[in-house]
Amino acid sequence: MQEKAPLSEITASKLISYIVDNGFEQGQKLPNEKILCDILGVGRSTMREAVRMLCSRNILTVKHGSGIYIADNTGISDDPFGFIFVKDKLKLVEDLVEFRLMIEPRVAALAASRAKNKDIMELERLAQICEDTILANENHNKADSDFHNKLCKLSGNIILPKLEPMIIKSISVFIDLSNADYTQETIESHRAIVAAIKNKDAIAASDAMIFHLMNNRNFILKRLTSLSEQPQMPSDVNI
Amino acid sequence: MQEKAPLSEITASKLISYIVDNGFEQGQKLPNEKILCDILGVGRSTMREAVRMLCSRNILTVKHGSGIYIADNTGISDDPFGFIFVKDKLKLVEDLVEFRLMIEPRVAALAASRAKNKDIMELERLAQICEDTILANENHNKADSDFHNKLCKLSGNIILPKLEPMIIKSISVFIDLSNADYTQETIESHRAIVAAIKNKDAIAASDAMIFHLMNNRNFILKRLTSLSEQPQMPSDVNI
Repeated sequence: MQEKAPLSEITASKLISYIVDNGFEQGQKLPNEKILCDILGVGRSTMREAVRMLCSRNILTVKHGSGIYIADNTGISDDPFGFIFVKDKLKLVEDLVEFRLMIEPRVAALAASRAKNKDIMELERLAQICEDTILANENHNKADSDFHNKLCKLSGNIILPKLEPMIIKSISVFIDLSNADYTQETIESHRAIVAAIKNKDAIAASDAMIFHLMNNRNFILKRLTSLSEQPQMPSDVNI
Repeated sequence: MQEKAPLSEITASKLISYIVDNGFEQGQKLPNEKILCDILGVGRSTMREAVRMLCSRNILTVKHGSGIYIADNTGISDDPFGFIFVKDKLKLVEDLVEFRLMIEPRVAALAASRAKNKDIMELERLAQICEDTILANENHNKADSDFHNKLCKLSGNIILPKLEPMIIKSISVFIDLSNADYTQETIESHRAIVAAIKNKDAIAASDAMIFHLMNNRNFILKRLTSLSEQPQMPSDVNI
């Protein structure tokens, strides 16, 4: 198959070291292709292939006519756990919901303990946007995700904001949570979570999150049951 | 920079769809390069580049002289969250440990509720291997990781076994846990966790895990403090 050693892969690894060693930040521009070729001692076609590899891993991004940049959310792929290769998608969604129930009550408690007032005001604003979106009868998936992602940031733990968006996105591929039966609960629970965090009350924040996610889970399990009773899962799912 | 459209990237996406649609399993061999070219309607050099991209994302693996195979742990990259790009590695380790404390007590509880006897015997065997390794004064990082990874599998949740190896590996890059002060605790805690799971006692399993991870955390924080008092972090760290 591939007879020669994968020089492009070696170059991709060297490029990662170059980025890390030189402390490039996300959004920052790299030197141009010719200079990179000189630095790493490879030809243009190898460099291009290495850059493409790193683009596909969300480490770099190429803006045509402009140059090579460090990607936003550097190195976090769209599907870091290979969910697309999990065959039983119903089980996957159930487990994603179970996983949220493991981490998010604790996230809310940490946010209540650690968040600064400025950030809490920002969280409140995101809850309000989510509420307004729901009341305008628009799809609030993004607003809901923004709220939960912000909470993860407020926890102060740097792992959680990397993990949460991918979990929420994966669930929302299967389940439309903008159902009217469920949105009123979302509004009330988000308010309760914000109130507890404002009061720096970690236990109340955790409890409010458990209540929210249990409602969320019950709703999702009901939807999954009706999905599994259909002849087959939608074939165009794309986590 | 890259003038032409990245045909290799489009081909890589198509190849993923082909793998998913045809239900290829990990370790399974794909049709040969020529057939893949015919199926996706591209030339050999494009296909080779696409295959290399998917190798770098741990979706495919090429065995020279044999063919293209679906990789083990399909699609899970070595560093799915881009930890290599996190500048403050001390904070990263602290947060990884905090993260373990969020999920593993619950993992132990789920394992106590759900694990089958055959799997519990296997867990006990892994605890014994870890213990034997420690008593032989050998590095028990791998044996310890095998024990915790098995616990994640016993939880029945399919997200956890994808996440745990990466967390443990990232911590072990920085901290050598084979210190004599700490290994006796590991032996006793692993025994307590196994005993609770054998008794199907979820609360005892969770408590034993909290105790184990708190000891683990205290040990790691002490080591981190001494590391941060050194002039600089080791420069050859490689998560």
